[in-house]
Amino acid sequence: MATSRWTAAAEAQPVSLRRRGLVLERAILDSALEQLSTVGWNGLTMEGVAAGAQTGKAAVYRRWPSKEDLVADALKAGLPDLADAPDRGSIREDLYELCRRMRGAMYSRPGFALRSVLHECDKGVAERFHAVILRQVIEPSNRLFREVVSRGIERGDVRPDATSDLVFDVIPGLMMYRSKVCGSEWPDEEITEVVDRIMVPLLRPVPTPAAD
Amino acid sequence: MATSRWTAAAEAQPVSLRRRGLVLERAILDSALEQLSTVGWNGLTMEGVAAGAQTGKAAVYRRWPSKEDLVADALKAGLPDLADAPDRGSIREDLYELCRRMRGAMYSRPGFALRSVLHECDKGVAERFHAVILRQVIEPSNRLFREVVSRGIERGDVRPDATSDLVFDVIPGLMMYRSKVCGSEWPDEEITEVVDRIMVPLLRPVPTPAAD
Repeated sequence: MATSRWTAAAEAQPVSLRRRGLVLERAILDSALEQLSTVGWNGLTMEGVAAGAQTGKAAVYRRWPSKEDLVADALKAGLPDLADAPDRGSIREDLYELCRRMRGAMYSRPGFALRSVLHECDKGVAERFHAVILRQVIEPSNRLFREVVSRGIERGDVRPDATSDLVFDVIPGLMMYRSKVCGSEWPDEEITEVVDRIMVPLLRPVPTPAAD
Repeated sequence: MATSRWTAAAEAQPVSLRRRGLVLERAILDSALEQLSTVGWNGLTMEGVAAGAQTGKAAVYRRWPSKEDLVADALKAGLPDLADAPDRGSIREDLYELCRRMRGAMYSRPGFALRSVLHECDKGVAERFHAVILRQVIEPSNRLFREVVSRGIERGDVRPDATSDLVFDVIPGLMMYRSKVCGSEWPDEEITEVVDRIMVPLLRPVPTPAAD
């Protein structure tokens, strides 16, 4: 997309026009993501990113003083937005959809790039990218889980006391744990099992005993 | 303990008697744990471990060809045993006790040593120590959770269909997640909240509706 805008602009303008602003930034960030997916953190160079964006490395360094700065922004720009909270009429459907979106974020090309970067780079740099996961995936999904559970309480398919912070950590905890320990990539069957056999029992209202 | 046995043996025997077998191994492993807690993975040397165990480095290398082999065994020997499944009469009490024991394992001196080793050493070596966590903490605690839940089903304070593998991953998942993301060290209040507000609601039987 950036390339075609550039080509169209170049055709319309003198050859000396350079890309500026957001168009060039987007091209550089896309190139960084491409490099991450192909040669990884270790293979990525500022020169290689610049070449992939058809620009000079000065243009890259002007905006991103270091490799970590560039990669952090590429990941932030690339990770899919989790969008607004799903509203499909039941806690079960809403949670299922939310889990699929989280999986989409973590197992998208940028998500894979993020996790292989974490694997390759040294500990100090990895901290920087843990912050990206926290802000781009964990905190937004926490807000969406809370919203979906609140709606369930209003609707009546979630018990009113399902308000502990820990409730909203169960799914991310399971996802992280099973990814690390079992290498799980969260297939639909596993998401279904988490929703049907863990979250729905955890959240359902307790029937009031009938009066004698 | 090893030191006093050695001293007693030395007093009883000619000076040329050297410690052998398990006594010497225990002294070396203790010394390795001590080194890990004080100077960490990077500071630990085979010579330093040998000196701390009042032996020569040949005695160390004879048994442990590499630093990882030695540290892996030191951690295995040092991590507390989770013991038999607690049986305190209710799922709530049993889970609480199990969580405290898991915390004890991960936040013991060897547990801290393990986690700081994971933090300091390079990725290939860290894989070796992840295997120690898996075998020494994760798999045993999984068995104990299953046992405690089975007993709950028999007793009647756990619903009979609480048999999904994921049920037994909820607590380890929460522990790992909250440790990494929030830096939690699992104080008693947090364990109580996990048991009372997550596990008990998740596991409790669903009352059968009264017949009309």
